Amino acid sequence: MSALKTITLEGPFTMKRGQLSSPTIAFETWGTLDTARQNAVLIFTGLSPSAHVASSSADPSPGWWEDMVGPGKPIDSNRYFVICVNSLGSCFGSTGPASIDPETGKHYRLNFPVLCLEDVAKAGAAVLDHLNVEQLHTVMGASMGGMTALAFALLYPGRARGMISISAAGRSRPFSIAIRSLQREMIRRDDAWQNGNYDFDTPPDTGMRLARKLGMISYRSASEWTERFGRERALDEAPREHPFGLDFEVEVYLEAHANKFIGTFDANCYLYLSRAMDLFDAADQGGSLREGLRPISLERALVIGVESDFLFPVEQQEELAEGLSHYVDDIQFRPLASIQGHDSFLVDMDRFRPAVASFF
Amino acid sequence: MSALKTITLEGPFTMKRGQLSSPTIAFETWGTLDTARQNAVLIFTGLSPSAHVASSSADPSPGWWEDMVGPGKPIDSNRYFVICVNSLGSCFGSTGPASIDPETGKHYRLNFPVLCLEDVAKAGAAVLDHLNVEQLHTVMGASMGGMTALAFALLYPGRARGMISISAAGRSRPFSIAIRSLQREMIRRDDAWQNGNYDFDTPPDTGMRLARKLGMISYRSASEWTERFGRERALDEAPREHPFGLDFEVEVYLEAHANKFIGTFDANCYLYLSRAMDLFDAADQGGSLREGLRPISLERALVIGVESDFLFPVEQQEELAEGLSHYVDDIQFRPLASIQGHDSFLVDMDRFRPAVASFF
Repeated sequence: MSALKTITLEGPFTMKRGQLSSPTIAFETWGTLDTARQNAVLIFTGLSPSAHVASSSADPSPGWWEDMVGPGKPIDSNRYFVICVNSLGSCFGSTGPASIDPETGKHYRLNFPVLCLEDVAKAGAAVLDHLNVEQLHTVMGASMGGMTALAFALLYPGRARGMISISAAGRSRPFSIAIRSLQREMIRRDDAWQNGNYDFDTPPDTGMRLARKLGMISYRSASEWTERFGRERALDEAPREHPFGLDFEVEVYLEAHANKFIGTFDANCYLYLSRAMDLFDAADQGGSLREGLRPISLERALVIGVESDFLFPVEQQEELAEGLSHYVDDIQFRPLASIQGHDSFLVDMDRFRPAVASFF
Repeated sequence: MSALKTITLEGPFTMKRGQLSSPTIAFETWGTLDTARQNAVLIFTGLSPSAHVASSSADPSPGWWEDMVGPGKPIDSNRYFVICVNSLGSCFGSTGPASIDPETGKHYRLNFPVLCLEDVAKAGAAVLDHLNVEQLHTVMGASMGGMTALAFALLYPGRARGMISISAAGRSRPFSIAIRSLQREMIRRDDAWQNGNYDFDTPPDTGMRLARKLGMISYRSASEWTERFGRERALDEAPREHPFGLDFEVEVYLEAHANKFIGTFDANCYLYLSRAMDLFDAADQGGSLREGLRPISLERALVIGVESDFLFPVEQQEELAEGLSHYVDDIQFRPLASIQGHDSFLVDMDRFRPAVASFF
């Protein structure tokens, strides 16, 4: 049972560095648009989630942010009309590299245009047009979703009154670019990738597995793992044959996460979305971040960061909040002491629920 | 021209978890053993360096710690008899998985016994026996070499009067185990690895390339790269075909390092040495680190760490120094403010030279 809705845009859909003839955009909604049409909240996602942010009567399966969105939750669907879009370039209903190009009848694969987060934001705006939402109460997102929310606020000044950016940044730093570049290389160097032309039945699982493990390493924090795993061994005795198998608990944990990920996400989509994060730079139009943020027109903004996040370090959220403060009267910066690193917004709900609720 | 000397031990050489029949150990020396035989300094290396720590008249090519060892340098070969061993298990003269097993006439490959840092330390002690060095002025090392120096001090109480441990630890934490586990998986999942039975002319270069890049990411620090690379692009314009090539300067940097590494280090040797670091735990014999360190008998010890190191975080050096303080009267802990992360001991010589010189 799916709550997913789709719209197909009349083309051409102009992207920052290319165009699509008539892309489909998938989304889900929770709650009801009020008669003044002022209570809509648009959520952009991180790289890998779908639009299914929370359960609903139409799809009771738990969403990826189930504790955050729903009746009586911090983003309260009794009060707000909540919209979550599957990112353009992804593979959960929206058009992406794994989709068929209506012009050629073939899958886009690497013929998909270079994807930028501005394009993902624009696809979100198209959903708002379809839903007759002229102005958002809040545009928001975490990680890549936070960067996309910022791209939206820059492209459409005034279209959102508020913005929440969580564990995101105004631009990617070389350390996170290096991590993602290596993840992409793991996929591209998997023979099964076939320069993007893999059989969908035999995708580059090895590359995706390695990329996911590096993802997990960069999404958490060393201190969390020291507390959680220490030097616990997975086996009662050391492996007999060679010493390179799964021995320590942390290795078993990474393996389990990789196994869960394999087969759920298209490799080319992963490559495009990953690169889009590298390419995003809110300073593009101004030289400095402060100048780049000049188009911003928001009544309120909340920037949340996590002190143990080394992929999007808290200094980047502080920098973003400082930049926004020149243009947004009501700006709040909330650094949280979560120990789970970049992923904290998904797991440290006791800290994140009140932080987000305070905005609504 | 090589300054490398080798000894072949009469077997069997008993290891912590196996044995070798008659391993060869390679080493270099600088300076002269004084008549009291009290001025010897033994250096253990990190995972990938050879015994060529510095140039000499026998081999004038620059060593990997050229600024640290030599006449008038912090480890002054005019005053000290300096010995550096190529680790057992490595591939620069000492017996390792790439060597031929004299028992079978075939390369060891994965038939090499599980390697522990205690075995590397024991091979170093065998070199001292050969050189007639009963007692060391100092045993020392950085990274894996620092762990090996500690293994030596635990195995041979009193055989060294002093110890210097740099950017090392009493045991590996799950974060660094995860990084190394993923590096090994990159190599093992390269089809060319062939379960360790690769043709030496067609080794698993792809896996080694990926592993090296992850190594470089973990050896440096995010803040160094932000300063150094920012968002500099390598090309004048964005690449035309697909956006996954080398675009940002940091990607070009990683590629250059990977290219330098490929072909210089045997993949199976890498796997064994990498795992040896995971397995090392100075608390093995005591339950806690403090109890595990009880056998230590040193007059002096210096523990150096770097604040930006996230692979061997400075808390681990502080923990080690604290543990040692219960058994060593003259113990110093020196956290350094270098920004180059784990690799600082190789590059931030202006901080490291005086820190090491202060001990001698």
